[in-house]
Amino acid sequence: MAEEVLLIGTWGSPFSGRIEVALKLKGVQYKYVEEDMANKSPVLLQYNPVHKKIPVLVHNGKPIAESQVILEYIDETWQDYPILPKDPHERAIARFWAKLIDEKCYPASFRACWGADQKEHEKAVEEVNEQLQFLEDELNEKRFFGGEEIGFVDIVGNVIAFWLGGLEEASGAVVMAREKFPKLCNWANEFVRQSVIKESLPARDKLIAYFRNRFGAGTSK
Amino acid sequence: MAEEVLLIGTWGSPFSGRIEVALKLKGVQYKYVEEDMANKSPVLLQYNPVHKKIPVLVHNGKPIAESQVILEYIDETWQDYPILPKDPHERAIARFWAKLIDEKCYPASFRACWGADQKEHEKAVEEVNEQLQFLEDELNEKRFFGGEEIGFVDIVGNVIAFWLGGLEEASGAVVMAREKFPKLCNWANEFVRQSVIKESLPARDKLIAYFRNRFGAGTSK
Repeated sequence: MAEEVLLIGTWGSPFSGRIEVALKLKGVQYKYVEEDMANKSPVLLQYNPVHKKIPVLVHNGKPIAESQVILEYIDETWQDYPILPKDPHERAIARFWAKLIDEKCYPASFRACWGADQKEHEKAVEEVNEQLQFLEDELNEKRFFGGEEIGFVDIVGNVIAFWLGGLEEASGAVVMAREKFPKLCNWANEFVRQSVIKESLPARDKLIAYFRNRFGAGTSK
Repeated sequence: MAEEVLLIGTWGSPFSGRIEVALKLKGVQYKYVEEDMANKSPVLLQYNPVHKKIPVLVHNGKPIAESQVILEYIDETWQDYPILPKDPHERAIARFWAKLIDEKCYPASFRACWGADQKEHEKAVEEVNEQLQFLEDELNEKRFFGGEEIGFVDIVGNVIAFWLGGLEEASGAVVMAREKFPKLCNWANEFVRQSVIKESLPARDKLIAYFRNRFGAGTSK
C-alpha cells in the first residue's frame, strides 16, 4: 500500500516547521497543506477537535497532533535517521530539554519581547536567560544537542535557533545576547545553515513583518 | 551489578505518586526519599538544578526529572508490564491525552477551585468540562484508558481520578459532576480501587487539610 502522509501546517509556525524537518531527515514523502488559522478548515477541526491547532500529521488516514508527539511518532514509524538517541537515559535527557524549551523558554521569550510592561519584560528576560544558560551548558562543546547530527532537541530548539531572533528583531528586545551565550549562538548559526533546515524555514523578513503586525512594538522600545 | 533505584518525592504529590505506581506495576524495587519542599535538600538541588522540583528518579546514579519523562524512561528500561501501547499511533494518542491532562486539565482545575474571582472560576470550570468531555468520549466503554489494564494515560490521569476530588472537597467547587461524566467517575472509582494505586495514594483527609491550608477557601464558597 502506498503511504499517505499529509502535514497540515502554517508557513510561519516553528511547530509545523519541526515536522517538515523530521520528515525530510527521514526521507519520507509527504503532502503539505497550508492552513488558514483565521478561517480554520473543516479538515483541521475534524483531525484536531481538541486544540484546533496545527500541526497535524495524518498518516494513512490517522491523525496525530502536538509537535513533540508527532516527532516521537515519526521516529517510531520510520527508522532511517533516528531523531532520539537509543539509550533510555539519553532519551530522557533529550525529552527533558525539549519540554523546557516548549513549556518555559519559548513562552517566556514572548513575554520578554512583548511583556505588559517593563517589569514583566525584565523578569522574563531574566527567566529566559537562566534557561538559556542551562542549555548553553548542556550543549557545551557539541556541534548539535544531538551530537554530530541534528536530533530531537535541535529540531524542537528551532524556536531558539531561528524564531527567537525574529521575535527579538520584531520587538527590539535582546534576549539571547551573543556575549552571554556564544555556544548557543554558534549552534543556532550552524543549525540554520543545514540545507534541510534552511529549506524548511520561512523568509525572515516575512516572519518579522508578521510578528510586528500581530504583536505591535516591543515592550523595551 | 545491583540496581540502585531512588525516588525523591513528596507524600501529597500526584507526580511522584505516578512514579511509585509505575515502579510497582513493573515490580522494580526502589528506595523512596521524602523531600521537604519548604527546605529543599542539597540532593534535590543537585539532581534537578533546573526546576528544583520533585519527582526525581535516580537510577544507578543517573537522575531524571519530570514525571512523564520518568514514566517513559521506566517503560523503556524495564520491560515487564508495558505502560505505553506498542503501536506507534496508539502511543501517540496516549501521549496526546497525557499532555492535555497535565498542561490544560489539571492547571485549569486549580483555577476552577481557587480562581481569583467568580468569573475566573466559571471560565475554568467550563474549560475543564470541555476537556473532561473529550476524555469521557475517549474512555468510552473501556475499563481503563489503557484498555483492560492501567496504562500511561491512567497513571498520568491520577490527578483527575483522585486529586481533583480532593481539590473539589477542599474548595467546595464542583468540577467533574457525576451526571455529566459518568464514565470518568466510574473509571476514577475503578482506578483508585486497584491495590497498586491504593497503596500509593495519600490519605484523603490529610490531602484536603493540606490544600485548605495552602490555598484557603475556594472561590465558589
